[in-house]
Formats: sequence, C-alpha cells, structure tokens
Amino acid sequence: MNNFEFKNPTKIIFGKDSIAKLENEIPKDAKVLMLYGGGSIKKNGIYDQVKKALANFTVIEFGGIPANPEYSVLTEALEVIKTENITYLLAVGGGSVIDGTKFLSAAALYEGQSSWDILANKIRTDVGLPFGTVLTLPATGSEMNSGAVITRKETQEKLGMGGPGLFPQFSILDPQVITSIPERQLANGLTDAFTHVLEQYMTYPDGALLQDRFAESIMQTLIEVAPRIIKDPTDYKAASNFMWSCTMALNGLIQKGVPTDWAIHAIGHELTALFGIDHARTLAVITPSHYKYNFEAKKEKLAQYAERVWNITEGSTDDKAYAAIEKTVAFFHELGIDTKLSDYTKDYEGTAETIAQRFTDRGWLGLGEHKDVSPDKVAEIVKMAY
Amino acid sequence: MNNFEFKNPTKIIFGKDSIAKLENEIPKDAKVLMLYGGGSIKKNGIYDQVKKALANFTVIEFGGIPANPEYSVLTEALEVIKTENITYLLAVGGGSVIDGTKFLSAAALYEGQSSWDILANKIRTDVGLPFGTVLTLPATGSEMNSGAVITRKETQEKLGMGGPGLFPQFSILDPQVITSIPERQLANGLTDAFTHVLEQYMTYPDGALLQDRFAESIMQTLIEVAPRIIKDPTDYKAASNFMWSCTMALNGLIQKGVPTDWAIHAIGHELTALFGIDHARTLAVITPSHYKYNFEAKKEKLAQYAERVWNITEGSTDDKAYAAIEKTVAFFHELGIDTKLSDYTKDYEGTAETIAQRFTDRGWLGLGEHKDVSPDKVAEIVKMAY
Repeated sequence: MNNFEFKNPTKIIFGKDSIAKLENEIPKDAKVLMLYGGGSIKKNGIYDQVKKALANFTVIEFGGIPANPEYSVLTEALEVIKTENITYLLAVGGGSVIDGTKFLSAAALYEGQSSWDILANKIRTDVGLPFGTVLTLPATGSEMNSGAVITRKETQEKLGMGGPGLFPQFSILDPQVITSIPERQLANGLTDAFTHVLEQYMTYPDGALLQDRFAESIMQTLIEVAPRIIKDPTDYKAASNFMWSCTMALNGLIQKGVPTDWAIHAIGHELTALFGIDHARTLAVITPSHYKYNFEAKKEKLAQYAERVWNITEGSTDDKAYAAIEKTVAFFHELGIDTKLSDYTKDYEGTAETIAQRFTDRGWLGLGEHKDVSPDKVAEIVKMAY
Repeated sequence: MNNFEFKNPTKIIFGKDSIAKLENEIPKDAKVLMLYGGGSIKKNGIYDQVKKALANFTVIEFGGIPANPEYSVLTEALEVIKTENITYLLAVGGGSVIDGTKFLSAAALYEGQSSWDILANKIRTDVGLPFGTVLTLPATGSEMNSGAVITRKETQEKLGMGGPGLFPQFSILDPQVITSIPERQLANGLTDAFTHVLEQYMTYPDGALLQDRFAESIMQTLIEVAPRIIKDPTDYKAASNFMWSCTMALNGLIQKGVPTDWAIHAIGHELTALFGIDHARTLAVITPSHYKYNFEAKKEKLAQYAERVWNITEGSTDDKAYAAIEKTVAFFHELGIDTKLSDYTKDYEGTAETIAQRFTDRGWLGLGEHKDVSPDKVAEIVKMAY
C-alpha cells in the first residue's frame, strides 16, 4: 500500500425528502446564487422543493449551465457573482452543474488575469467561495469530491481542475430524484460510476486488499442494481444503492494508497470535446480497447476482477482477464451504451492522430499507472476503438 | 436504506515514516499537551519521533493514561490543561489514550459543574479543544471518529460520550508501529475491529447493498491478514491493511443507512468494568451467545455472512447461520482469544444478574437493532457465555 493522505469534509445528507433540510445548511445571512442546468428541475418538482427550503434566504438564480459545463456560460455567472456580491453558491443539478459551480467557487476568489488560467495552468484552489449541492443526477461523484472538469467550445478543450478548497460544504442526496431521470441519463450514470471505479482499480496488484475489495463492492452493487434502475427508476432500494455507489465511486476513498490509471478519462474527454459524445459513452468506447491494448500490464488485476466481480473462475489468467473485458462490454451493451466510436460518428477517421497530437502538444507524454501510455500508444488505442 | 447524515472531517496521514509530518498539522503558536499511556512509546521509538517532529513547539507531557482510560487520571490531565493554558492536545497512543484525549477535549471547554456529567448525562460535544492523534495501536477506530468510552473505577462504570466536536483534526497512521506491539494486543486489535464491523452488520437484511459489501470487505481483509500479522508484525503489507481496516471499521461509514446492534459492546463494557477483562476479549465472550440467543432475528444476515465472508455455501439458512457463528468462534480461538467468561474468571456466578440489574437501573430496557434485548434477555445471554 502506498503512503496517502485522505480528508473529505463534505457533509452528506442522504435520503427521502432530504431537500427540505437545505435551510439548516446555509448561513442565514448568505446571499445565495442558485445554479442549475437546462430547466428539468422545474418539471420534476426539485426546483419547487429547493425554493421552498430557501424561502427565508436572499436567492438569485442562474440557469442554463449545459452538460459539459461551458466556460463562456460560466463567465456570465461569474459576472453575476461579482455584481451581486454573492456569498454562497448552491448547485442544483448533476455533475455538470456541480463542476461548473466548483469552477465559479474558485474563480470568484481568483486574483489572476483570466479565470481560464485556473484550468490552463492547473492552479490548485485552497480556498473557494463556499458552496453546497443538491444532486439531481447520480453519476460523477462531484457532490463529494474537490475536482471539476470544464469545457471550452471555442478551443475544443475539456480540462480538469481542483483543490482542497473545492469540496462542497454539504450535498443533499435524495434518491427519489431518480424517478424523473430519462433512461439515457440513468445508463450514462451507471456507466460513468462503473468506469470511475475501474480507473482506480484496474492497474496491477499492489497489496491494498481493502481498497480492492471496496472497489469490487461498488462494481458488484452497480451491476446488481443496474437492471432494476433501468426497469423501474421508482425502485427506491435500487435507487438509493445506485446513488450512494456513484458517490463512493469518486469521493477519493478507493484511490487512496493504490496506483490509478485515468487514461480512459483523458482520452474520453477528447471524444466529447471533438464530437460532443456523452461523457459516459466515451468511457465505454475507450475502456475495452485500452484494456486490450495494455493487456499484459493489467491482466493480473483483470483476472482478479473476473473472479470477484463476474464470478469467472475457470481458465487461465489470460482467459479470465479476456472474459472480464467481454463481460464489461456486455454490461455496457445491456445498458444500451454503444462501445465503438463508429457507433457515434461517421467522421472518426483521423481521430487517433488528432488526439495523439493534442496530447503531444500539451506535454501529456505518458498516461496510465505506469506513465507509459505515450501519444502513439493513445493513437493505437483510439484506432482499436473505431 | 435508511436516511442518514455523514460527515467525517478527520485528515488521515497514512504510511511509512509519516510521524515526521506532524509538525505541519499543529498551529505554530499552539501550546501542546502530549498525552500517552504507560510509556511503551519510549521503548519503541515513537516518543522520539514525535518529540523530534515537535522540536519547534511548546510541549508539555502527560503520560500514564491506562487502558480503559480512567476518569480520576484524566481529571489530573484536565488540571494541567487549565493551569498551563493548553491550546492543543496530541494523543500518542491507542484507543484508550485517544478516547481519554477526547474526554479532555470536551471537558476543557465544558462549563458545567462536574466533567463526569458529560458521561452521566450523555452531553453531546459540539465544540472541543482541538486535537490530533498519532496512532500506536490499531483497533478501536477512535482515530477517525468522534466517540469515546471512559471508565470510572470508583463506581465500576464504563460509559460512552461523543459529538461532532470530537473528531481528531488529523490522525497519523504509520503501520510500522505494529512491529513493536505485543501479540496479545495485536490479537485484541484484530478481534476488536472485527466485532465493530459485526455490530454494524449483523442485524437483518435492509437492502443496503453497498454498506453490506463494505462491511464484508473489512471482515474478509481482517481474516486474510490476521495470521500474517500474528506470525510476523513486520509484514508491512499485512500491517498496512490491518491498520486501515481498523480505521474503516469504525469511522462511521459502514453504519450509515443501516440498522446497528451494539448490544455486544454494551454487555462487554460491563465485563471490563467488573473484572478488568480486555475490551476485545469481552466482545469475543459475548458475540457467540448473543448471536445464538437472538438467532431467529439474525439468521438471514448470519447466513449472508456465512456465504460471503466464510464461503459456506452448503446447507439451509439455519445451517449456514450456525456454521458462521462457529467460524467466528474458531477465528477468535486462532488468535488466542478465549470466548467464555469462565476462561477469564472463577467468580462469574451472579454476573448475569448484576449486569441485568445495572441495565435496569440505567433504564437500558431494550438493546439491539430491534431494541428488544431486555435486561432479562441480557442475563440469559451472559449466562450462555459463562
């Protein structure tokens, strides 16, 4: 087990009808900017629940944060924060709204020239404007971590940021929100959370027995509840396990003390930036070819995953490892998630070279747990995913 | 899954040679009271490491906190805190020293008549004197939770306390400390942590799939590393998994959203108060008879535990459930832990009635997840454990 530090101060308020508890979590004298996305919260009742809980607060609203939170939209929100002297941010949404809010939390107190520097120069945020979240879409884990990913259409970039100042002060998780989520987004959420676990697990055996088992626990739970969620989003038992699994998949716990990969995300982000493919679907596209291309390096852990998560006990290490990749692909397919780039775009030719060139330009010369996935290897992986 | 709130702000600093990082965690202008136990830290080098890391701080020492931290000793430390205007507490020890430090953190800011009221009247501590810990003995999880148990010899009492103000600000976990721990205490730590998990798991199936699997993960890991730890405490891989498992067993995570029992601890504390039996050993004494006495209520979960933790797949639910209890007893025995009260004292006659009377006097009329383990049932359980 590697040395590690772990601190996660976010307060989770989990369960039925928990949005009403919002009023106890925000300072009474706060001037709140409530941030949300395309407006689905106005149809499913969440907007009304939040407004009711905030009846005694000064609240300004900023809606319209898109999936893959867009820098140009966020700069408008930043203007509101400064003009209106906002003191508290409240994200009501999924990962995109929460990530956008984290950017704003950092940008509101950033003293440099351009807020894009926070992303371009990987500036760590130690203190941000305080914020909380009401989660409406389980998937990204952003509700209990300190990272965010922001998109800039103008330059077709999608970059990460973070820092200890960017943990939500609280996050409210009411699994009942799942009842109104479209099937496509439920499938995305399941795929996203599952891949988050894989990125922190599918490396090489490192003797971190508990972290391995926790990761396997989350994947087993997602596999168990996935068909129930898709069939009936009002199944509260399934919904609550889905929601809590998504949070635990990326709140920092399972990555402590172990090697992590994250090459799938790095490559996947490019597919979103280039083609606008849903984040989760880009992960499902890259995962199988990444594991096949790096098979030798990952096969021991793939075989452990095969045995413990998919109950594949027959065959050699190689057999089990391959079977586990196929099981993973089948799991994505059962969720209605396609796993080839050509399923999403006819314009895939040249994508491998474009991404490899971008990584070279950014100096991303070695991805993965061994930092040996070079841009030309990235190109091979992307080609395998065509 | 039940509604829950979860917040755990303790910073964990885990790994080889991490005690040196202590100096970054305490405010530079702090006046520190360093608390420890019987002085084993002076033999195993931990004292020197701590003193070196604190070379630039004002430090006063208070040693001699006994196992089952004793109220009369702690009141002496409280005098030092007040006389010396201490601003920061540093516990260097195991659960007893850390629990004692938590009591002092609460008592230092308590404005009532007697600090014993905090225990007798279950006064919750919202703000305590800040403190950190250097863990020298994995077992209790006290390094990452906000609870403590304090003993008062004068009245043969052992009572719990806690509150959100009693999380350590940081805890340093260097698995190398395990190399100098006597086998008896290693066995106690393994048993203690294992039983902590059982108390939060062995109730009835409640559909909290992830929490169940996390609990099973910790127990599987403890079972896997236990023989390696006992055979060779210098096995760092085993030691690090043991240490992290003990912390995760009682940092609040696995109990969120699920029913919990804790009757074993309530009864076990009485055996320590009456006979001075090591805490962990009292748990090993009570666990089997508690599960046998409450077999009908717990058998479904016992059978799940049998299948997933002990790989017992043959037989009926009852068969598997019984076999799991026997496996648990065998696990304790392999650690050298006796599981009958008569193994520890010849004076056990009347103990059942004494404990039942104490619970009646305190108004503890229903323990366990169903709050139906009445004092007369407690007496039956204790008699079965003779």
